Amino acid sequence: MTTEKIGILHPGAMGISVAAAAQKSGHMVYWASVGRSPHTQARAQQHHLLDGQSVATLCHTCTMLISVCPPHAAEEVAQQVLAHGFAGLFVDANAIAPQRARHIGELMAVGGVTFVDGGIIGGPAWQPQSTWLYLSGPEAERVAHCFVNSPLETQVIGAEIGKASALKMCYAAYTKGTSALLAAILGTAESLAVRDELMQQWQRDDPAFPAQTENRVRRVTAKAWRFAGEMEEIAATFEAAGLPGGFHLAAAEIYTRLADFKEQEEVPGLTAVLQALLKR
Amino acid sequence: MTTEKIGILHPGAMGISVAAAAQKSGHMVYWASVGRSPHTQARAQQHHLLDGQSVATLCHTCTMLISVCPPHAAEEVAQQVLAHGFAGLFVDANAIAPQRARHIGELMAVGGVTFVDGGIIGGPAWQPQSTWLYLSGPEAERVAHCFVNSPLETQVIGAEIGKASALKMCYAAYTKGTSALLAAILGTAESLAVRDELMQQWQRDDPAFPAQTENRVRRVTAKAWRFAGEMEEIAATFEAAGLPGGFHLAAAEIYTRLADFKEQEEVPGLTAVLQALLKR
Repeated sequence: MTTEKIGILHPGAMGISVAAAAQKSGHMVYWASVGRSPHTQARAQQHHLLDGQSVATLCHTCTMLISVCPPHAAEEVAQQVLAHGFAGLFVDANAIAPQRARHIGELMAVGGVTFVDGGIIGGPAWQPQSTWLYLSGPEAERVAHCFVNSPLETQVIGAEIGKASALKMCYAAYTKGTSALLAAILGTAESLAVRDELMQQWQRDDPAFPAQTENRVRRVTAKAWRFAGEMEEIAATFEAAGLPGGFHLAAAEIYTRLADFKEQEEVPGLTAVLQALLKR
Repeated sequence: MTTEKIGILHPGAMGISVAAAAQKSGHMVYWASVGRSPHTQARAQQHHLLDGQSVATLCHTCTMLISVCPPHAAEEVAQQVLAHGFAGLFVDANAIAPQRARHIGELMAVGGVTFVDGGIIGGPAWQPQSTWLYLSGPEAERVAHCFVNSPLETQVIGAEIGKASALKMCYAAYTKGTSALLAAILGTAESLAVRDELMQQWQRDDPAFPAQTENRVRRVTAKAWRFAGEMEEIAATFEAAGLPGGFHLAAAEIYTRLADFKEQEEVPGLTAVLQALLKR
């Protein structure tokens, strides 16, 4: 097996698990510390990532770069890599619409960069059989090989750029779409003074559902700030496929109203969540 | 107990079960045969409903009228009853936004008719503990008493017109909203050639989910023609409560695309459903 020099842009909670998985499979894994937060610093040091300092250095050092960032930053990260003259293999593993993945792929092709489309389903990859990195593109197998001895599961789903992103979009459309829908329903029920009655009816259908729903709606708040962008990508995906984007534009609105919970250390109570939803 | 003379406008699959429940509780139950379909005729005869022929006759015969119809027809039925000079108690048990229920209530008050807001959750009420008629309004208890010895469960949730409709809207927002969302997701996945991969990932999460989802999407088609109007009512409910209506406007679009399955006798295959969704 060829040892790759892999740069992770940028190791957040998910990215650090991807970095650790590549390390575990025997590869050299780099990050770029300049301008990153203390949280990111701490994560990278804890997992002994190699610090290339700047993205520019990573672009000249690494054979492969993997972009793991919030969807709104995906194109900027790709542009930055191109600007620094990277000439290896670039993986976009972000939650973006397939047409955006194809667009980034075209930019990469013009710049002489090999491009692989990726989509991650599941949480940070610390346990086997829990997180899947889906890959598509002519060089997708080369990326999959970087994680053979790690808890990050990989699956190549074809040579076509956009398929991995399409799968990620369709999957998240349900999980994150229904979390937003449930939040909107509880907000509406609260506003119309029928929340207790709704919970009671839900309990008649399934005794576990009310508590599960309350937990989902409370716990999603911490990630709401970055889900808004993902919902907009899903809406664009649906529209491009000929289906209505309105489900996920509404979900984006819900997550935008919850974005201020980003910095909160404790999971907020349901009352606080509903107040945020109902404050215009 | 006072024996009520109850008119059901109009006994479809749900309405006939409401009629039978009132009969079982000892009341005289009427319907109006003029202009109704052979299906409705057959249902009414099978359950020995009293035929008042016209809505006008029902308005002069009955002490209580219960409207059970598709949401788009709710206001028309109410207007018709007023035009015929009804002077008893009118229950709107339809899936309409609370502001529309309040509007109908105001029309009724002007016409001297007692109004009760209703919302039915569950399928046709042939088994106990499966279908709830929620009621709100000053005279709600009088309506609840009409079903004491029947499989139709009732619950009075206050004196305020609009609460029963609000509860129905919030409940259906999830059940019918997610059926439409799943249909849209499968349509998108089909269009982007990742449907098999999506089903596989869903199976990893929950082995029963793919088959359940396929069944939901196929079986909802028969009722799609009347769900579109209900989704618009839910969207209006959300908007009036200060939450985004986009989830259910998108759901209305999905059900509109599936409306042609109304006349189909057999449950269509998934391929036929996805074709209908993707034909603009």
